[in-house]
Amino acid sequence: MRVLCKDIAGSNGQEVEVKGWIHRIRDLGGVCFIMLRDRSGMVQLVFESAPDVTLESVVSVEGTVQENKKAPDGYEIQVSTMKVLSRAAADLPIQVNGDPDKLGIEAILDNRVISLRNPKIRSIFHLQSNILAYFAEYLRSQDFTEIKSSKLIGSGSEGGTGLFEVEYFDRKVYLAQSPQLYKQTMVASGMERVFEIGAAYRAEKHDTPRHLNEYVSLDVEMGFIESDQDLMDLETGILKHIFGRIAEYDGSILEQWGASVPSQEALDHIPRISHDEAKAILSERLGKRVFELNPEGERELCEWALEKHGVELVFVNAFPRKKRPFYTYPDGMKTMSFDLLFRGLEITSGSRRINEYDMLVENIKRFGLDPAGLAGYLEVFKYGAPPHGGFAIGLERFTQKVLGLSSIKEASLFPRDRKRVAP
Amino acid sequence: MRVLCKDIAGSNGQEVEVKGWIHRIRDLGGVCFIMLRDRSGMVQLVFESAPDVTLESVVSVEGTVQENKKAPDGYEIQVSTMKVLSRAAADLPIQVNGDPDKLGIEAILDNRVISLRNPKIRSIFHLQSNILAYFAEYLRSQDFTEIKSSKLIGSGSEGGTGLFEVEYFDRKVYLAQSPQLYKQTMVASGMERVFEIGAAYRAEKHDTPRHLNEYVSLDVEMGFIESDQDLMDLETGILKHIFGRIAEYDGSILEQWGASVPSQEALDHIPRISHDEAKAILSERLGKRVFELNPEGERELCEWALEKHGVELVFVNAFPRKKRPFYTYPDGMKTMSFDLLFRGLEITSGSRRINEYDMLVENIKRFGLDPAGLAGYLEVFKYGAPPHGGFAIGLERFTQKVLGLSSIKEASLFPRDRKRVAP
Repeated sequence: MRVLCKDIAGSNGQEVEVKGWIHRIRDLGGVCFIMLRDRSGMVQLVFESAPDVTLESVVSVEGTVQENKKAPDGYEIQVSTMKVLSRAAADLPIQVNGDPDKLGIEAILDNRVISLRNPKIRSIFHLQSNILAYFAEYLRSQDFTEIKSSKLIGSGSEGGTGLFEVEYFDRKVYLAQSPQLYKQTMVASGMERVFEIGAAYRAEKHDTPRHLNEYVSLDVEMGFIESDQDLMDLETGILKHIFGRIAEYDGSILEQWGASVPSQEALDHIPRISHDEAKAILSERLGKRVFELNPEGERELCEWALEKHGVELVFVNAFPRKKRPFYTYPDGMKTMSFDLLFRGLEITSGSRRINEYDMLVENIKRFGLDPAGLAGYLEVFKYGAPPHGGFAIGLERFTQKVLGLSSIKEASLFPRDRKRVAP
Repeated sequence: MRVLCKDIAGSNGQEVEVKGWIHRIRDLGGVCFIMLRDRSGMVQLVFESAPDVTLESVVSVEGTVQENKKAPDGYEIQVSTMKVLSRAAADLPIQVNGDPDKLGIEAILDNRVISLRNPKIRSIFHLQSNILAYFAEYLRSQDFTEIKSSKLIGSGSEGGTGLFEVEYFDRKVYLAQSPQLYKQTMVASGMERVFEIGAAYRAEKHDTPRHLNEYVSLDVEMGFIESDQDLMDLETGILKHIFGRIAEYDGSILEQWGASVPSQEALDHIPRISHDEAKAILSERLGKRVFELNPEGERELCEWALEKHGVELVFVNAFPRKKRPFYTYPDGMKTMSFDLLFRGLEITSGSRRINEYDMLVENIKRFGLDPAGLAGYLEVFKYGAPPHGGFAIGLERFTQKVLGLSSIKEASLFPRDRKRVAP
């Protein structure tokens, strides 16, 4: 019966079986120490002489657990037998058991199937798995229903630019940039509160540390709201839950990365400022006139929020109409829309949507789009749709910012950018 | 403060506000009854005279809750004021408040954004949302990590047939048929146990009640197994959990569809028969020689399982090598592979995978594929991979069979088939 590395202490003095990967070999002549790695952690194996095994080989080992204060975690296994289940070639393309910070991002991604064996690199995705769970858990507790919408769409919701084209039998379709129209359909169908976890695609050519061409979008849509304030309230609730859970359960991952999450108290004080206020704050702090929020401005606003409000997040709302998509609910020359900035990066965009048929048709035209091409979408609003709105959190951006990763690509298992489509 | 329809009884005698859709209007002259629908259910509104409102309009209503034994659920609201939040056009393309069984599948799908307002149709997707939660919940409890892999791949894992082509900047990539190679990578990375919930694509031209060109795949992969028996054990555990939860929490949805789920006891007796045994059983029962499992055979085997073992499921394993993909672990001329049939339909395919580099290269060649094209994949196995295997459950097929839907397309919010790419 296999015992996991993390549970070795509980088997002190007993014969156990462990299975895993050969993480490190230290041959001292009369004795050989091997670190065995499994999904739960590591344990030190003690051999009288170096066994015939290579780094990263997968083995099954039997032996006796012994306390040893010098061993990592205080216990080790005196090995009686070892069986090699899968022998690794000796020419590892990158070092698995070293410090990943010494590997460049290109080396990490070029050798993705090997670099993911590094425990620190892999921990990014254990955290990401938990973020997925925490996100869904909170929304389910608030009576949200999870949906799965199609990623193949007949035309773009925002006019057809930035879309990847798919050969679909004898016609062309596109990869969806967002499930937003589907989320809205489901709110209007009577589900009222929906969320979706799914892939989103942007055929944008920029190659930066903050962009991916394929990413996981954590999408939320809610009916019977008054304004974007309700959405910011909801997102604050989601963040308090996710950060609270991370603090409670994922401390060891944060520690590996020297990271921390905002406290519950800090999250009660996320400032909400208008786009105009944001520009004024930036103009003053940067000593120049600022006309829009660029990456420099996003970083500076988060600095401001930390200084003035003690939290590394800031909501910016009331964007001008021309800066937001056609479906955004207007409020004079502004809109009921917002972004959330976290540690210098926009991780969310959201808004109340137009739910009135005539206003929507008018706005579609105002944006130079053709209402006929959006007839299926318009039908939702023709037959009664409650006031509603929503937002999306980019999973990889969020993960990047929680752990302080230098590139978003580190937070995607198999990232896709302009040049990279493998592995 | 809004009260949901399901909570009306608790507000007897009080002034409440309710919000929702006008589901049904019954004007009796001196009094008008309106059924209001929200995400939680319905409530009867009582007006002295018919208000100016159309079916499916969204309203906000204030009034007093009164007990009335004749009202559905025993309570109704005497309305004092009603505000129309969004007025529905009078020409509803299909009837929302009728029996969906009277609508054909084409009418339901052609008018998807309206047909989803029917509570019985929408209940399919409330159940599906819960199935997603139950699936993930069980796997997390068994120490599985959730992954999100790319759906854009450089080449097909199974030779390039049946793939949708995507224009990706200046090159062509394909929509993934399965995350299997990525699941395997993650097992070999040391995660050992992973699952993924994601879209899968099949560019197959058949248009049947059991096929979709885009579906949600519930994927599982586990390391350190001995054979496919371990995988069937795991899948049985998953099914016991999902069916147990459905029985506990989703009884009202089952009731609407006249459906039931297998009992926990029945699930302990799912037979496991070889492909050869399956053919022998079918030959005897159908009175003709049977060479492969076709839809007729799948239905008949489930009949057999119900008669002989009291359960509507059957595992078929030990498929011949030529019937399974190149990565399937051989066992003489057979393979360590299986299908799970449920109520006449294959809902799962799984196998132990080849984890030995040389055996994998040999098998790739045996299948007429080029190892060079799979170099990135092969690297996983060159550097130590534990014995492992996995399987996938099709979410829509599973939902279809739980509720007894006549077509799989009813179990997809926005289904994609050869002809349908909208809404």
